[in-house]
Amino acid sequence: MSSSQEKTNSKPRIEGAKRAEILAAATERFGRDGYEDTKWADIAADVGVGATALYHYFESKQHCLFVIMEQAIADFRSRFERITAQHRDPLLSLDAVMRDCFELSDHEVLRNRLLVAEQGLLSSRRASPREEEAREAARARTRDLEFAWAGFLARAMRDGAIPEDDPRLLTRAILGLYNSIWQWYRPNGAVPLDRVAGFFSRRAVAMIGGAPDEQVPARMVA
Amino acid sequence: MSSSQEKTNSKPRIEGAKRAEILAAATERFGRDGYEDTKWADIAADVGVGATALYHYFESKQHCLFVIMEQAIADFRSRFERITAQHRDPLLSLDAVMRDCFELSDHEVLRNRLLVAEQGLLSSRRASPREEEAREAARARTRDLEFAWAGFLARAMRDGAIPEDDPRLLTRAILGLYNSIWQWYRPNGAVPLDRVAGFFSRRAVAMIGGAPDEQVPARMVA
Repeated sequence: MSSSQEKTNSKPRIEGAKRAEILAAATERFGRDGYEDTKWADIAADVGVGATALYHYFESKQHCLFVIMEQAIADFRSRFERITAQHRDPLLSLDAVMRDCFELSDHEVLRNRLLVAEQGLLSSRRASPREEEAREAARARTRDLEFAWAGFLARAMRDGAIPEDDPRLLTRAILGLYNSIWQWYRPNGAVPLDRVAGFFSRRAVAMIGGAPDEQVPARMVA
Repeated sequence: MSSSQEKTNSKPRIEGAKRAEILAAATERFGRDGYEDTKWADIAADVGVGATALYHYFESKQHCLFVIMEQAIADFRSRFERITAQHRDPLLSLDAVMRDCFELSDHEVLRNRLLVAEQGLLSSRRASPREEEAREAARARTRDLEFAWAGFLARAMRDGAIPEDDPRLLTRAILGLYNSIWQWYRPNGAVPLDRVAGFFSRRAVAMIGGAPDEQVPARMVA
């Protein structure tokens, strides 16, 4: 990139960095203290901007929440696509996807907690156009992720790797089981993440019918 | 009961009926329109009492929500206890419990949806003593239900009916999978309740390791 381009792009780039910083600070606050209990002004203080400047990036706390959700789900989707593209064998793919689902930083755990706790807000239409647009974007990403999973499961069924059944219901079962973890899991809590990962990966594979207990690869056993 | 006792008890009895009526109306509103989008005054109008009279029964919308949650979880617990007491065989018990979990009126489906959508509110301490008391009561009921399930699973493991594993994590997996259904299931939606019941019962039993697919009783198959 030439220096003239750098100059031209520097304002959007700084704005993009500030926006990312706000999203990260908001995820921490919402995930740790709860969405309802977090004040929009606290996030402004965290990133060192005034409340007015904050509104340049996000119209409201809710707008910001929807953008966090959209990014989180898009991130899940791209990880899913990358991993499933790496394996021809559907059971190896499933194993790799399940393991990846638990390779999470503390920030990503907080983000998952937030995603699950405030999922209900995605179902209420918003009066503000910007909020509604962000809500629709997050919902579209959820549908994309479900579609990717259902397509993957349908192919695994067609290949005879897992028993035939409704791939959309099975997708909902897998994502529902996974999402439920973040309602109770706490970093530094009684159950460490690697034990949760081992337990839930095995149980999810059993639920899918991909491998009876005795065939589960040793690395998936906690 | 003598008529003098009836007279003495009539006021509490009428109050109890009105309270139940408010809880039922609130469950319908919260479940159908969403908790956030429901106005406390709409519930007062539904049951034909003024907003001031409503406050005699519940301090706030949130207080009312916590009481609904507490009653719903207590109801699950007593159904669970009643059914598991009827069977000596843990796998028959499990089968009966799973089927019972889906024998729901439309009102109970709405209540489940509400329970799941607003579960996050149970984790934030309330400043008001009455709200906080109701929140703690709902949390205690949740622990009771989890404890009952974990005890049941631990006995089934001890009897060799299901593979040995952590009964508390398995409880969380079962309840998490079940709760996830009410986030997307809608009466009169694309998937009828009996199909959901068949699918999720089979998948839950597979997850628990209670019966491989070919051993699942025919009545559990959709």
